[in-house]
Amino acid sequence: MIKVFGHKAPDTDSTGSPIIWAWYLTHVKGTPAEAVLLGTPNTEAAFVLKRWDLAMPPVIDAVAAGEPVVIVDTNNPSELPAGINDADIIQIIDHHKLVGGLETKAPIDITIRPLACTATILHDLMGDAAEDMPDAIRAAMLSCILSDTLEFRSPTTTPHDRAVAERLAQELGISIPDYAAEMFAAKSDVSAFSDAELLRMDSKTFEVGGKTLRVSVLETTAPGVVLDRKASLMETMPKVATEDGADQVLLFVVDILREEATLLVPNDLVRTLAEKSFGARAEGDTLVLPGVMSRKKQIIPVLAL
Amino acid sequence: MIKVFGHKAPDTDSTGSPIIWAWYLTHVKGTPAEAVLLGTPNTEAAFVLKRWDLAMPPVIDAVAAGEPVVIVDTNNPSELPAGINDADIIQIIDHHKLVGGLETKAPIDITIRPLACTATILHDLMGDAAEDMPDAIRAAMLSCILSDTLEFRSPTTTPHDRAVAERLAQELGISIPDYAAEMFAAKSDVSAFSDAELLRMDSKTFEVGGKTLRVSVLETTAPGVVLDRKASLMETMPKVATEDGADQVLLFVVDILREEATLLVPNDLVRTLAEKSFGARAEGDTLVLPGVMSRKKQIIPVLAL
Repeated sequence: MIKVFGHKAPDTDSTGSPIIWAWYLTHVKGTPAEAVLLGTPNTEAAFVLKRWDLAMPPVIDAVAAGEPVVIVDTNNPSELPAGINDADIIQIIDHHKLVGGLETKAPIDITIRPLACTATILHDLMGDAAEDMPDAIRAAMLSCILSDTLEFRSPTTTPHDRAVAERLAQELGISIPDYAAEMFAAKSDVSAFSDAELLRMDSKTFEVGGKTLRVSVLETTAPGVVLDRKASLMETMPKVATEDGADQVLLFVVDILREEATLLVPNDLVRTLAEKSFGARAEGDTLVLPGVMSRKKQIIPVLAL
Repeated sequence: MIKVFGHKAPDTDSTGSPIIWAWYLTHVKGTPAEAVLLGTPNTEAAFVLKRWDLAMPPVIDAVAAGEPVVIVDTNNPSELPAGINDADIIQIIDHHKLVGGLETKAPIDITIRPLACTATILHDLMGDAAEDMPDAIRAAMLSCILSDTLEFRSPTTTPHDRAVAERLAQELGISIPDYAAEMFAAKSDVSAFSDAELLRMDSKTFEVGGKTLRVSVLETTAPGVVLDRKASLMETMPKVATEDGADQVLLFVVDILREEATLLVPNDLVRTLAEKSFGARAEGDTLVLPGVMSRKKQIIPVLAL
């Protein structure tokens, strides 16, 4: 049985894409596969599973040596189980930059495309078989695209992501604005999470100017809920950084509807970084960055210290 | 202008695939591209260029920072110019195992498939545009597949590689056995090369049991020509190893027609390696390995020290 999984902080794309691809491998290709998760899905992903009556995939924290696996939505070993290079990686499908570090024992099937969403690539790889998707799988695919594109607002969105999503919505007979609003409301409901959990929920580690930065993003339609907690979030940052081997945690609160990000500025390091990266001076402990919605496209490429 | 290139030891696939893909990018996609080489093409590749009146691509030894490049037929930084990660890598198309080490600044287009030949993947990526290839480009594609599959004898050959090649040959109106014989005769004509050149002609470096091995392969229809030089080839091995930072050079002379490889055994290190890797005892200074034709599939996976 092939295990299909995404990265360790399962958002909608990293939860839905394994489910979609396990369906395709099992029911179209005839190679039995099972979707698994490398962590607890976020509230939006959990909403999508429940809304479409999809079974919650089991959560695993390790893969056995020689175990056949398919990796979707990442090619970064740090976002995967420690023994990943000893597994039998048979396929990688992703839409992130190549970071290096993954190795395979033989030539395998790798597809990386500069699209907004892994699920869009899955759609293309399926060809005509996409027409045979059951409604729940089709809905998972639509959900992934709406999530990763923030309903086509993110600058990562390509016309192709949008066209695929619009076609899926039409086939399902649902309204994209209504459904996306439900998804984003679920994503914005973060009241149950501790400060540390919020800082780690959607976080990736990068090296910038000799420092290790944990770059965390919270996409929400209710930024006030998060920003009301800014004092305790900033107090928790040093603890999370130390525990995770980072020098600093950055938190960008992305307002999906206003299409802007608010960066928390707890100290001079982040103040300097904000000025060098975005050319904007933070007077207080927050900095609003109009138009910034994408870590991949608008944050990581400009980060400087 | 996008530069398209393969690896540093241009065989037919690493010479032909850049030419094919530069044609596609320029004439189908409308993005001007130029094929270049990272070394002198081998005698088979040179024959193919001449036979089909294809211009010899310029040989380069460096890429500028920020220069747009497409890499075909490798994903291994050691087979590419030193500054490759500073170039603007916009696409990678390959059929080798993922070795790690290449990095990109943003998500790009990467297609790796477990097929025998890069050109087969190019054919698939082109879709209907493959029908518009001029004869010389079509012939380059056929040549790449016949070369990498050793006319379908190599165990790396997939039914898909074969089907594409047979279709191309039919469209060109040429006989595969006759044309492949011409190609292999050109490849076997190694009289002009020094021992050191022969040892480096088709060579890849691997780490095995703490040692750095340069694993060289010579595919030929006239193995006697090479084996007659075995004494001086073995004498030259230590010099090449030292110059290239390796512990040992291995030379496998692949007899395309008899479908076997002869390994030169200059010392006890290689004798031990031969026994541990292939379970065969070398009595003299050579070891015949029946059926062994593919470094990728039959040599590298079993190498042990």
